[in-house]
Amino acid sequence: MESFIQEMKRYLGFEEADARLLRQLGSPMEKYLPDLAERFYSQIQQHPNAFRVFSGGEAQIARLKQTLQNWARGLFSGVYDEAYAEERYHIGYRHVRIGLEQKYVISAMGIVRSFLSECLLLEFPASDERLKYSRALSKMLDLDLNLMCESYMHATLQNLRSLNAQPEDANQQQADVPEQVEVYHG
Amino acid sequence: MESFIQEMKRYLGFEEADARLLRQLGSPMEKYLPDLAERFYSQIQQHPNAFRVFSGGEAQIARLKQTLQNWARGLFSGVYDEAYAEERYHIGYRHVRIGLEQKYVISAMGIVRSFLSECLLLEFPASDERLKYSRALSKMLDLDLNLMCESYMHATLQNLRSLNAQPEDANQQQADVPEQVEVYHG
Repeated sequence: MESFIQEMKRYLGFEEADARLLRQLGSPMEKYLPDLAERFYSQIQQHPNAFRVFSGGEAQIARLKQTLQNWARGLFSGVYDEAYAEERYHIGYRHVRIGLEQKYVISAMGIVRSFLSECLLLEFPASDERLKYSRALSKMLDLDLNLMCESYMHATLQNLRSLNAQPEDANQQQADVPEQVEVYHG
Repeated sequence: MESFIQEMKRYLGFEEADARLLRQLGSPMEKYLPDLAERFYSQIQQHPNAFRVFSGGEAQIARLKQTLQNWARGLFSGVYDEAYAEERYHIGYRHVRIGLEQKYVISAMGIVRSFLSECLLLEFPASDERLKYSRALSKMLDLDLNLMCESYMHATLQNLRSLNAQPEDANQQQADVPEQVEVYHG
C-alpha cells in the first residue's frame, strides 16, 4: 500500500536525485532564511483575518519566525520519508487548530515559492544546475503544501464523523475545533 | 469589503502588470496546450484513486483534455475579476462533486506548473522578460489553485451545516455529496 507521500512524490516525479539536490541547497540557502521569515510574516500582518489568529503578540511572532526557518530547513533536509510527512501534516494541523483558513496556507506557500526562487537567482548563475535546483524545489513545495492542506481535509472529515456519531449534540460540536485528530499515516 | 480574489491577489502581489504579461503569453503558449492536456491526463491515469472518478471512459477523457486546454487559456485571458473567480471556484466544485480528492488537485497543479515553466524555457531566451513571465505565471497558478481548493473547504462546510441542521438524518447525509452549493462570492 502506497502512502500519501509516496504517491504524491510519484505524481510529481520527485526522485532521489531531487532529494540530493535539495540537500545540497541547504547550506547556500541558510543565509536567506531570516529574510524569508520576515517576508512571510510581514505579509500575514497585511491580512487581518490571518493575523488575528496569532494572538500572542510580538513574542509569538518572533518565536514563529524561528519556527518558519526550521520548517524551511526541513525542505532541504534531503530525507522525505513517513516521519517527514507526519511532521508536515502536524504543522498543517496546528494551523487548522488555531483557525487559520486554508487559503492563507496556500498563498503563504506562494510567498515562500516566490522568495526562494529569487534566492536561487541571486545564488547561482543561469545554468542547468540552477534549473535542476529550481525544479526540485518546486516539487518539494508542492509536496509540502499538499501535506499541510491534507490536514485541513482530515480535520474537517473528523469533524463530520464526530457530528455524525453524536447527532443530538450537533449544535454544540460544530462550534468546536477538535482537540485531537488521529495521526495521518497514508 | 475585499473579495476572495482581491485579497489573494494582494497577498501574492499580483498586479495589473502581471495580468498584462499573462495576456501576452496567451498566444505563444497556445501551441503547447494540447501537450499540456496529454501530460495532465497521462499522470492521472497512473493514479487509480484519481482516475476512477472519471468513469466515462476514453470519450470523457478526450472531452476533458479540451476542457483542460480551455482552462489553461483562461490563465492567459488577462482578466481576473469576480466572474473569473466564480468560474474557477465552480471548476473546483465540479472536482469536489465527482469525488476527486483535493490532494490530486494540488499535485495536478504541480504538473501544470512544471509543464508551463518548461514551455517558457523553450519559448524565450534567458532574459528579464522570461523572468517576468515566469513570476506572473507562478502567481496566477497560486491564485487558481487557491480558488479551486476553496471549493473543497466550502463544500465540506456546507456538509457540516447540513448535518447540523438535520441531526436526526446525519447517518444518511454524511454519505451524500451535496447536490448544490451556494455560489461563492468572497
